[in-house]
Amino acid sequence: MKEGKRMDNRECPIAQAAELIADPYILLIVRDLAGGPRRFTELGQSVEVNPRTLTARLRRMEADGLIVRSVFPEVPVRVEYRLTDKGKDLLPVLEAIRAYGERWLIANVQN
Amino acid sequence: MKEGKRMDNRECPIAQAAELIADPYILLIVRDLAGGPRRFTELGQSVEVNPRTLTARLRRMEADGLIVRSVFPEVPVRVEYRLTDKGKDLLPVLEAIRAYGERWLIANVQN
Repeated sequence: MKEGKRMDNRECPIAQAAELIADPYILLIVRDLAGGPRRFTELGQSVEVNPRTLTARLRRMEADGLIVRSVFPEVPVRVEYRLTDKGKDLLPVLEAIRAYGERWLIANVQN
Repeated sequence: MKEGKRMDNRECPIAQAAELIADPYILLIVRDLAGGPRRFTELGQSVEVNPRTLTARLRRMEADGLIVRSVFPEVPVRVEYRLTDKGKDLLPVLEAIRAYGERWLIANVQN
C-alpha cells in the first residue's frame, strides 16, 4: 500500500501533534486564550467545563509549553493564563477547524 | 472581555468540529484514509490501536458521516473504509496539524 518503510507514528508530525491537541477542551482553551490572557473562572465559563477538568487540562498544557500561568500578588490573588509562542502557533489549526465547522456543522444546523 | 452576547458553544464552529474530530485516533484514521480505501487490519497497524478501540472509532466516524464502510462479498469477506466528502474536507485541518507538528514537535526531537 505504501512504498518503502512505513513511517512510525513517533516520527509522524500529525501523530505527535494529535497527542498534544486532540482534546475538545484543549482546543476551546486555545480558542479563548487567542483573545488575550484569561482568568481561571473566565475559562471555566467559556469552555463550559467543571473546575477539576479545567485544572487538569491547564496543567497539561502548561507542561507541554502551550500556556503560561501568571500569579499576581493581589487580594484576592489573581491567576491568569496566556498562550506561549508554541500555543499561539496553533491558531492556523484552529482557523482550519473553524472553517470546517462552518461548512459542515453550523450551516447544517441552520438548514 | 467580549462585546455583546457571548457565543454559545453550540453555535461555535470550533466547538462543534472539536466534538467530531478532537480524538488522536480519529485524526490518524483520516490521515491514513487520505491515501485511499483501507481495510480494517491495515488501519489497525498504521494507527497502532487495538481492534476494540478501532471498531468504536470507525463506527462513530461512520455515524458522523466522515467515512463509508463497504463490504465486498469475497471469501474471506473484504471490508474497506473510505472517506466521504465530509471526511475528505478534513484534509486542510490535517495539513495545518502536520505543519504545526513539523515546526514544534518533530524538529525538536532531532535537535
